Amino acid sequence: MQRETASEMLELGRRVLAEQPFSVLLGTHLVGFDALGAELELSITDVLRQQNGFAHGGVVSYLADNALTYAGGAALGTAVVTSEYKINYLRPALGDRLIARASVLHAGRNQAVCRCDVFVVAAGAQETLCAVAQGTIARLSGGQPEARRAPTAEDAVRPMHSRSDR
Amino acid sequence: MQRETASEMLELGRRVLAEQPFSVLLGTHLVGFDALGAELELSITDVLRQQNGFAHGGVVSYLADNALTYAGGAALGTAVVTSEYKINYLRPALGDRLIARASVLHAGRNQAVCRCDVFVVAAGAQETLCAVAQGTIARLSGGQPEARRAPTAEDAVRPMHSRSDR
Amino acid sequence: MQRETASEMLELGRRVLAEQPFSVLLGTHLVGFDALGAELELSITDVLRQQNGFAHGGVVSYLADNALTYAGGAALGTAVVTSEYKINYLRPALGDRLIARASVLHAGRNQAVCRCDVFVVAAGAQETLCAVAQGTIARLSGGQPEARRAPTAEDAVRPMHSRSDR
Amino acid sequence: MQRETASEMLELGRRVLAEQPFSVLLGTHLVGFDALGAELELSITDVLRQQNGFAHGGVVSYLADNALTYAGGAALGTAVVTSEYKINYLRPALGDRLIARASVLHAGRNQAVCRCDVFVVAAGAQETLCAVAQGTIARLSGGQPEARRAPTAEDAVRPMHSRSDR
Repeated sequence: MQRETASEMLELGRRVLAEQPFSVLLGTHLVGFDALGAELELSITDVLRQQNGFAHGGVVSYLADNALTYAGGAALGTAVVTSEYKINYLRPALGDRLIARASVLHAGRNQAVCRCDVFVVAAGAQETLCAVAQGTIARLSGGQPEARRAPTAEDAVRPMHSRSDR
Repeated sequence: MQRETASEMLELGRRVLAEQPFSVLLGTHLVGFDALGAELELSITDVLRQQNGFAHGGVVSYLADNALTYAGGAALGTAVVTSEYKINYLRPALGDRLIARASVLHAGRNQAVCRCDVFVVAAGAQETLCAVAQGTIARLSGGQPEARRAPTAEDAVRPMHSRSDR
Repeated sequence: MQRETASEMLELGRRVLAEQPFSVLLGTHLVGFDALGAELELSITDVLRQQNGFAHGGVVSYLADNALTYAGGAALGTAVVTSEYKINYLRPALGDRLIARASVLHAGRNQAVCRCDVFVVAAGAQETLCAVAQGTIARLSGGQPEARRAPTAEDAVRPMHSRSDR
Repeated sequence: MQRETASEMLELGRRVLAEQPFSVLLGTHLVGFDALGAELELSITDVLRQQNGFAHGGVVSYLADNALTYAGGAALGTAVVTSEYKINYLRPALGDRLIARASVLHAGRNQAVCRCDVFVVAAGAQETLCAVAQGTIARLSGGQPEARRAPTAEDAVRPMHSRSDR
């Protein structure tokens, strides 16, 4: 991991995100990604809303979960899965964009504990904290099929299309 | 709530679910809904998958969260929001359908604590537990805009289109 | 683990519990312990109470945490630590005894996910559910110093006093 | 709350802590307490240890839980209870003292969401982060008996001994 530059990590992370049909469906973008954490963003389109016009909790959870996974993957420097997380919703996600910023609190040999803050932004307005999450990201055990994996140095030498299911 | 029959509750719940653009996008169905809990189900279509062919964690979380909200709403008999929940992923959600069953552990005056088990089902196979969640569902405070609300008796006398944002 | 009888496991578990000064301080008893789960119990003495006469939340959390660890240790068949857990307090723990029952939801190679229900009992009254918890118990990695470990077959052939710090 | 000075709040908080037999048993000290958060500390005496010489997880959880409650009580300016929290243990709590620092992330009308970092300190060594928690603190509903309540302005005009159970 150390051998990669920030731009290489970001490029790598975006390629992996592009491989997740669900992330493509929701229109998620990887804005930042380095050894300390990750930032994901998406536009709150109508299909991602509630009957009341704000982002569905499931969208907020998805973004927090994915950001936690990226942060943990960066820290562990390998393919990972989210083992568990908890999220507290603070305010309705009323706005145009969701931003999830996750950082690593502690990384051991096999797992990392990360936190994530999710902000909602309305046009021309400031970011408003709308949810907070905390969870465990685990090193992917060899046998297990890959889950929400974060990109690693291995990816650089592994052709992306070889893992694509589309 | 007590005055409603099971079929009335189920019908009511389905109307509310049909109002959530995100739930419509994911193709969620309300299979069961009564005073003790709720059961939600969806087909794992390709857009809901990982690069590895199983349901994205965000889809599993969404379904658990929504099932918890329905269970809490039924218990509290009013409009509710999910305050918080935690989820542990047990296995990759490899299969064709996801089923989330949530039940009420305790309901107070203003909030209910619920649990949810999420199962994945492959064609012709048995249900496999793939995630477990536990969370708090809170009575919606008057001022606050409605969030992931569960259906209540009020809905029966309130024209649905009046809350629609489509 | 399978080679042990239920009575051997219970005896083993009690020896390990007796080695935890904090558990001795709180007067915790291991009531049940097998491959499926564990049951811990303690009397709510005055020093374990709030200013209001019921058990302090910290006592309820301790008992739930320890029960989760025992359940996970039994399932993994090795020394373990609690990685994380969440707890929801449902009612004030007003009574004479606390009982925590933990069971295993899923056990993988390196970790187990468990649930725990905590009940409070008043003299001559029924058990009342006062808290619910869910958490992850992890196999103890060789290097790491032992934490809240659950008893395993190894203990049977390892003299207890060799791990004692008193 | 605003009318109280920092020193008044700290004094108040210490009187309330002194009323909790369990906190007295564990030797907890309130080091800091203001509208933004709270800091609790205790010495890791032998009775609070594991068979391996470090603080029992139940002690770490208790301190995190209590710090969260104080932080939430300060933000809500009323008597409160911990509704729920989750904790991730990062490292064995090997040292002489535990320090829990909790801060408020969001306070609504009836509840506050708080985070807590728990540090362990060995003689002459730096603080080491050993656990992180996140939870919900709720306004105490009138009817319910008081639980882990944080001090409020009301306490200033209410004689402490009137709530004592000793």
